[in-house]
Amino acid sequence: MATATQDIQLCDDGGLKHFLTIEGLNKQRLTEILDTAESFVGVNNKATKKVPLLRGKTVANLFFENSTRTRTTFELAAKRLSADVLNINVSVSAASKGETLLDTLRNLQAMQCDMFVVRHSASGAAHFIASHVEPHVSVINAGDGQHSHPTQAMLDMFAIRRNKSDFAKLKVVIVGDILHSRVARSQIHALNILGTREIVAVGPKTLLPENISELGVTVEHNLEKALPDTDVVIGLRLQKERMRSALLSTEDEYFRSYGLTEDRIKLAKPDAIVMHPGPTNRGVEIEASVADGPQSIILEQVTGGIATRMAIMSIAMGNIEKSLSGSRTDSGLVN
Amino acid sequence: MATATQDIQLCDDGGLKHFLTIEGLNKQRLTEILDTAESFVGVNNKATKKVPLLRGKTVANLFFENSTRTRTTFELAAKRLSADVLNINVSVSAASKGETLLDTLRNLQAMQCDMFVVRHSASGAAHFIASHVEPHVSVINAGDGQHSHPTQAMLDMFAIRRNKSDFAKLKVVIVGDILHSRVARSQIHALNILGTREIVAVGPKTLLPENISELGVTVEHNLEKALPDTDVVIGLRLQKERMRSALLSTEDEYFRSYGLTEDRIKLAKPDAIVMHPGPTNRGVEIEASVADGPQSIILEQVTGGIATRMAIMSIAMGNIEKSLSGSRTDSGLVN
Amino acid sequence: MATATQDIQLCDDGGLKHFLTIEGLNKQRLTEILDTAESFVGVNNKATKKVPLLRGKTVANLFFENSTRTRTTFELAAKRLSADVLNINVSVSAASKGETLLDTLRNLQAMQCDMFVVRHSASGAAHFIASHVEPHVSVINAGDGQHSHPTQAMLDMFAIRRNKSDFAKLKVVIVGDILHSRVARSQIHALNILGTREIVAVGPKTLLPENISELGVTVEHNLEKALPDTDVVIGLRLQKERMRSALLSTEDEYFRSYGLTEDRIKLAKPDAIVMHPGPTNRGVEIEASVADGPQSIILEQVTGGIATRMAIMSIAMGNIEKSLSGSRTDSGLVN
Repeated sequence: MATATQDIQLCDDGGLKHFLTIEGLNKQRLTEILDTAESFVGVNNKATKKVPLLRGKTVANLFFENSTRTRTTFELAAKRLSADVLNINVSVSAASKGETLLDTLRNLQAMQCDMFVVRHSASGAAHFIASHVEPHVSVINAGDGQHSHPTQAMLDMFAIRRNKSDFAKLKVVIVGDILHSRVARSQIHALNILGTREIVAVGPKTLLPENISELGVTVEHNLEKALPDTDVVIGLRLQKERMRSALLSTEDEYFRSYGLTEDRIKLAKPDAIVMHPGPTNRGVEIEASVADGPQSIILEQVTGGIATRMAIMSIAMGNIEKSLSGSRTDSGLVN
Repeated sequence: MATATQDIQLCDDGGLKHFLTIEGLNKQRLTEILDTAESFVGVNNKATKKVPLLRGKTVANLFFENSTRTRTTFELAAKRLSADVLNINVSVSAASKGETLLDTLRNLQAMQCDMFVVRHSASGAAHFIASHVEPHVSVINAGDGQHSHPTQAMLDMFAIRRNKSDFAKLKVVIVGDILHSRVARSQIHALNILGTREIVAVGPKTLLPENISELGVTVEHNLEKALPDTDVVIGLRLQKERMRSALLSTEDEYFRSYGLTEDRIKLAKPDAIVMHPGPTNRGVEIEASVADGPQSIILEQVTGGIATRMAIMSIAMGNIEKSLSGSRTDSGLVN
Repeated sequence: MATATQDIQLCDDGGLKHFLTIEGLNKQRLTEILDTAESFVGVNNKATKKVPLLRGKTVANLFFENSTRTRTTFELAAKRLSADVLNINVSVSAASKGETLLDTLRNLQAMQCDMFVVRHSASGAAHFIASHVEPHVSVINAGDGQHSHPTQAMLDMFAIRRNKSDFAKLKVVIVGDILHSRVARSQIHALNILGTREIVAVGPKTLLPENISELGVTVEHNLEKALPDTDVVIGLRLQKERMRSALLSTEDEYFRSYGLTEDRIKLAKPDAIVMHPGPTNRGVEIEASVADGPQSIILEQVTGGIATRMAIMSIAMGNIEKSLSGSRTDSGLVN
């Protein structure tokens, strides 16, 4: 059942125009992103990492929450697509003059920005923005509260597909603070849509959402029990800044029960891959020797992340262009 | 009578090389800007918003006073002209090393920057800078103290001309804190130069400059009396941060007397347009339903602002180029 | 005797791939930089200051220590070479999430950045980074602690050569806080490698390193005695922020003994040039009339600095490209 959030991100012909959430997208949409990302791997390996697909477009990075790492990947992706990039730290700039969020948006779209990449601490922020922009603007969710981080999930799918071709044969274990993780939520949706055989969510009761089994995952509190026969192990960042109450006694205790150690990884398949969205807390979620070890594809996730974001941005922009052609003068001034 | 500030911004042939103030410019100069801006509207409406006019030029945004909104419009205008842009927050960077303003400038022009876009809290700062730069550098005033904000005034003229062709037939009412508004001062000069039939300045005595009638405006303290027969209503931002003493009892009281409400706008001509330089304080200077209503062209001002700034930058740079041709090696190193 | 720091910056064929320190480079390497910089002077004097040498490359400015001036010159140099530039203020961004330096680096190179320009308060930081990057990444030292500032030294050599062709005939006097100056250390190495006839280090005992004569300079505590017959006078910035203890009684006293005054400069050759890495403390290290006088080439240093940095960046990148050709797929994802 598609909700408003899901519908709003699609054109009439079903193509993506915004990218807000994985929910409600079908396998064809996700596969289109993965296939397009594949074509950008070549671009990023070339001596000249530049294609003209977004030339003359303006991409505004609207970061209401600081995240240099995510902002950098979007900035790079946009620049390699030849777009002009505006970095706008909204909390700092507008608040001091009492400007509202919508006023900021209306102004940026009046300046004929073509795409907003939005990071916000409130769940639903990207959707709220997408529901208020004009038809010529595409909105990409770069993480909203505990709700969704769909580009991160897609780059994870990209990394899995590159290493483990067929999702229908895979057992994937996701370990950690699923309750506060926008990444985990998006990953679970994407894995299900792509037909993953088995998804197991592992963590202490206090860090698993109550309704988690409704998402289509098996729940397990004992990591050792979950790992056998596993193809993909995904560690999550312990979102210390998001944990409002003392759900964990200590970081040490967490590591003892849920840390991805060499010994534990041996319980999974010998060719299992280990993933983490980064930045890692070594000695808390993951042992350093595992993060840097032969089964880790953590840095490959980062590399593929540029290609995946280039794919999402160019697909969305292309669909907006297509839907606007013939009605260019709708927005702003008439020529 | 042209003063030094006015002369300094013109080449020998009368073309603009700096853009510091509206004062002293003639109708031909302003019309050249408006006509050139018109040609850039097309650029900003195209799928590829990019022209090569400033390719290989370096534009330095020197913001001694924070203004994300204004900085963004100049950054966009420069990038759409294909210039390289440096954003330099001067207060933060140089002060800590005891560098003087002139030292900073000399260094930036030694790096062969071509244009300084200057925002400063002190009146006359842009003029001071323009009087010290080398012949290859153009200076654009992006707001200096309470003195002048000439690019904002020009984008306002652009928006008025697009909606109300002939200035000679217009009655324009400017409402609010004219005493502290660099925008109002520049608007009044521009409106007079363009031959506006009638300009009325409206506000409480405490917010109108003593010598305001010398600027060529009628003064009126009662907004309801000023509005009949008006074509253009311009609200000004209440510059709370610039009001040093308690000139107003409360914001509520201001709104009761001078807020642009639906009821008041009905007193003007039925096809009157409502303008505001933004960001608006809804419920203080303007009622939300007016700001977002059918007579408001506030966002159109923003859109036209990019085209207007592109026009000013390309005209000034073109004139500098012309005056330098044949004497390129004056500055920096000899090839 | 070449140390690890020196070896690491060279390709097998002796070409530069990183630029970390002047030490261990031969005259041919330095001359290659100066000759290449010469060819970029023309680029920076042209109306269109842009060459496509680094098009499609990503240059990350990693500034662990704030320096707007140095960052700006590298940003400009990179943009005039057509590179994409990322400005990353590392102290602010990563620390808050507990990310380690190496983690940041590994992520940036996973994003297929091609060059890191590194500024750090710790001596050896750039070398540490260069020893950990993958073969496709070039590291440029933009100043590390009190150790080295090699691009500054090269732009100084460039400015000297433009004014005083043959190093073998020159007497160079370096005045000031040599103990805390990364610039002085790099200058002395470069001057020696280029065969300078005589280098004199002048300053109070407390500001000269104990082992300074081992660097191949004459030591003199009396500036008046040092100046006769001098071709090049280099003042150093008084690094107040780096002086941990009270090595100087007052700034006035310093100026009385070591300030570059008009009277003192008259003791040098009539055509002597006066240099300073900037920003100058007028009235402390140098008299204003000398800094702005006819013998000062301080701003010419800045202008040449862009050309010199363009030269270093393009040489290093070119050598990396050459060494990678045929093995492009080593890094990141395989196409």
